[in-house]
Amino acid sequence: MTHFADRVTSACRAKGNAVCVGLDPRWQQLPLELRQRHRGGTLTDMARAFEEFGCRVLDVVAPLVPVVKPQSAFFEACGPAGLVTLQRLLARARRQGLITILDGKRNDIASTAEAYADAAFAGTMLDGQRHPVWDADALTINPYLGRDAVEPFLVSARKSGGGVFVLVRTSNAGARLFQDLDCQGRPLYQHVADAVGGWAKENLGQCGLGDVGAVIGATHPAELTLLRQLLPHVLFLIPGYGAQGGSSADTAGGFRSDGSGAIVNSSRGIIACFRPDEPRWEQAVEQAARQAIADLSKATPMGSLGKS
Amino acid sequence: MTHFADRVTSACRAKGNAVCVGLDPRWQQLPLELRQRHRGGTLTDMARAFEEFGCRVLDVVAPLVPVVKPQSAFFEACGPAGLVTLQRLLARARRQGLITILDGKRNDIASTAEAYADAAFAGTMLDGQRHPVWDADALTINPYLGRDAVEPFLVSARKSGGGVFVLVRTSNAGARLFQDLDCQGRPLYQHVADAVGGWAKENLGQCGLGDVGAVIGATHPAELTLLRQLLPHVLFLIPGYGAQGGSSADTAGGFRSDGSGAIVNSSRGIIACFRPDEPRWEQAVEQAARQAIADLSKATPMGSLGKS
Repeated sequence: MTHFADRVTSACRAKGNAVCVGLDPRWQQLPLELRQRHRGGTLTDMARAFEEFGCRVLDVVAPLVPVVKPQSAFFEACGPAGLVTLQRLLARARRQGLITILDGKRNDIASTAEAYADAAFAGTMLDGQRHPVWDADALTINPYLGRDAVEPFLVSARKSGGGVFVLVRTSNAGARLFQDLDCQGRPLYQHVADAVGGWAKENLGQCGLGDVGAVIGATHPAELTLLRQLLPHVLFLIPGYGAQGGSSADTAGGFRSDGSGAIVNSSRGIIACFRPDEPRWEQAVEQAARQAIADLSKATPMGSLGKS
Repeated sequence: MTHFADRVTSACRAKGNAVCVGLDPRWQQLPLELRQRHRGGTLTDMARAFEEFGCRVLDVVAPLVPVVKPQSAFFEACGPAGLVTLQRLLARARRQGLITILDGKRNDIASTAEAYADAAFAGTMLDGQRHPVWDADALTINPYLGRDAVEPFLVSARKSGGGVFVLVRTSNAGARLFQDLDCQGRPLYQHVADAVGGWAKENLGQCGLGDVGAVIGATHPAELTLLRQLLPHVLFLIPGYGAQGGSSADTAGGFRSDGSGAIVNSSRGIIACFRPDEPRWEQAVEQAARQAIADLSKATPMGSLGKS
């Protein structure tokens, strides 16, 4: 079983970039063509439209990028039918050789955390057999509940060669309310980062990175640079690039000098880059993905990835 | 539209107690009778067993207690079929006049938080119409991302007379790792509690309680008492009573003197109180619920509720 960080690192080297396409489908941003075909007006129609859209986006981006990140909230918003869509898109992405990060920001304690974790990774146990549920490569989790609440996620991820990304410094403007609170001379998020660094060290891949990563927003470039220095062995998942205001240069500090160590997510900047009435929207998605890759290759060490 | 806290308070007065039954179904703890009837070995069978079990538990406890709290993780563990079960159980509980708290500990930012929140409360918007998804009265949320991330949950809850419960001091042993960090002379959880107190004040019901509550574990009785004094207008949801080790006396400090202001959750102590081969398991559930009510009525101000 290949270590999660090694799988991420080789996927990034193979594609020559570290771009993650966020699958955050919103009805109002779907191509009109799809909205018309699935116009029944029920959440099941909405889920089917998300599925067709997601499949077509995956077909466009799979040859270009190493990672995709479906956002659970938008699929849950369609009810059970949306979760069928989520399952199918995760399976398709996996078949296409993409690394999948399920963005669920899950958190709970003991056997409840274990239920979330097994659904994401190892599969739910029933009568001695494991049944895959989301079968993702990684899951985002929230650290507020402490180590014993994070533990079940690590255990389940490690069973199946998966990884977790722990929220450290989120990309929203209001993140500072608690994350920047001064705790014994250092902001809270640095204490969380310390813990993440310790958890990551427990299981390092050959690439020198652990299977516990950190989510750090591109909207905080100084923090990204500082945390890269403090946590050389932690893989960063960087949201907030593009539509949320982070520039390619803002993400640069998150990479290691060889271009590894970070994944930069773009959601709306790629999957909602077109006007809904644009008939050639897949070409627009392809162009936006290529543009993000070019933009990040120029402004960050990511450009070295394809050259090794 | 009646304010969330007023609905909770009258439901508690009507039933004469403030007990919440947690619906956390685990396959191994289901009655053998149910496991045999749904023994197909797929997650859909598991979801159907959870549904029959949940319905029968609801029928037993609905006349006794004011509130139920399904734990999303255990339904998600069955995949999409489990979410159908969750939807049906929430709808049944509502028809039975129970207040429903969806325990999902959700958290995210901006339109993503809005998608979670609308699914929980107001319904997902599609072509100008709202479609109910979980249609719960309340949702548990995680505060780590800050106020702007909590905001969409408040907005959606307030549209439909719902409420949120923010994690403040969780019941697990490892909660202290971050929640007790010394931030400018006070532990982190007290800063979160301050914020929750401010958010609750924005929309108080006639009972004097807000629609933003706090989750505080029964395993921390001293903190419960302190926070009750600091936050007289905040409704507490108290997990950790029973199977997790908190006693009825441990929850006493969480109540206001008239017996309002707190809801005490018991999950395994009620829904997993019997041996799987017990044929009269519903009577055991009824007895355990009555025992929890009696136990808490004796040891806490909750006993005053039925007498007003």
